[in-house]
Amino acid sequence: MFVAMKISYNGSMFFGFQSQSQKHTISNTLKKAFESVGIFSPFVGSGRTDKGVHATAQVISLDIPAFHSHLEQLKNLLNTKLYPHIKIKQIWEVSKNFNARFSAKRRGYCYVLSKHYSPFYSVFSYHHKIKNEALLQEAMAYLVGRHNFQAFSKKGGAGSKYCWREIYRVKLIQSRDFYILSFLGNSFLRSQIRLMVGFLLEIDKGKLTLGDLKRQLEAEEIFKIPAPPGGLFLSSVVY
Amino acid sequence: MFVAMKISYNGSMFFGFQSQSQKHTISNTLKKAFESVGIFSPFVGSGRTDKGVHATAQVISLDIPAFHSHLEQLKNLLNTKLYPHIKIKQIWEVSKNFNARFSAKRRGYCYVLSKHYSPFYSVFSYHHKIKNEALLQEAMAYLVGRHNFQAFSKKGGAGSKYCWREIYRVKLIQSRDFYILSFLGNSFLRSQIRLMVGFLLEIDKGKLTLGDLKRQLEAEEIFKIPAPPGGLFLSSVVY
Repeated sequence: MFVAMKISYNGSMFFGFQSQSQKHTISNTLKKAFESVGIFSPFVGSGRTDKGVHATAQVISLDIPAFHSHLEQLKNLLNTKLYPHIKIKQIWEVSKNFNARFSAKRRGYCYVLSKHYSPFYSVFSYHHKIKNEALLQEAMAYLVGRHNFQAFSKKGGAGSKYCWREIYRVKLIQSRDFYILSFLGNSFLRSQIRLMVGFLLEIDKGKLTLGDLKRQLEAEEIFKIPAPPGGLFLSSVVY
Repeated sequence: MFVAMKISYNGSMFFGFQSQSQKHTISNTLKKAFESVGIFSPFVGSGRTDKGVHATAQVISLDIPAFHSHLEQLKNLLNTKLYPHIKIKQIWEVSKNFNARFSAKRRGYCYVLSKHYSPFYSVFSYHHKIKNEALLQEAMAYLVGRHNFQAFSKKGGAGSKYCWREIYRVKLIQSRDFYILSFLGNSFLRSQIRLMVGFLLEIDKGKLTLGDLKRQLEAEEIFKIPAPPGGLFLSSVVY
């Protein structure tokens, strides 16, 4: 039986999503939980999140044995094993052609900025008080559309022709002590959101200009320091 | 110049408050920050918090060199060093007889329960949905007063006569997705709050009775499993 699972996790407790031998990663923790209930098939996630990055809606897909046909029961059982830093929010049946990574059409990420500094916010946000909201909005709008994001990729040198991506929508939302920068795109390069946010915050500080952003969107490397991982959440995957 | 500092910290990032060689503790992190600005005198905290326990208002006292007489400046300087998991909220001058530990008259702790389970709550709360609020209130009221809390101490065998403590006030507060159990006392034994909360939750689950609580308050050991550290906050120290 082929299923998809929507999961959330506190990334500050893991060395990222991807399986790495001997490391406490999200994949390794899931694998261990699956094996403890007789699921040994490989699984794939919609995207890898780096060390310290969170997810409210990561999606994984896999083939499970027929004896686990009661999906709600399986979810509860797995959640007792994954407690307290990973939670399966939903399990549903999918066609055998479904692949959490390759079937994904859109991915949404949120980056959370905290207006005030608190040691209780720092694991889930980055402290930055926005100085010029209108300018930040304008800069964010530059990101929308199809661009070569090579200069916003950790790998960078991977070859310019593989770095074209499309961003459909950006939003800046205020909520109590926080600002949320949200990005919806087809897919994102490694560290792309954090590098974009890092750049946007330099514009807000007056240290970089909209012109600089335009040039970096044309693959010229001007500023390449990612915003810290704790502020980033993988927040939706659309199929 | 003798000063006190009120500090907050995210305990999930440390091996507790107390200095331990080679370990990433709050005291070691403070010491390193102090030394980097020319402060080498020893300091004392109002109380030790265990691994994973947080503070919104820990107090420490120490003697600082005269060249740091501008306390607001010193606070900001130290906060850049302590970022992002410890924050100095306030520094003020005290008399040379002041000692953060021995001058403290009352200490307040909060234990946070989350009604819903989320991997984003678990570092700062413990997931427990209260079943019988009236019963829990009644049980909490039993704790008020002067008791021998030996059976609510991690050490336990330290000698009954050293385990008399007084609790002045307990409160159960609801706030959005959380319940907060607050305790105000003169001082608390090692792990006392977590052992009391662990006991209270067993009463709420119907696994222990008010009679059991009464017997444990008379130093009989009935149930001794502490609630997890992540829910606990040292929240006030009164001098």
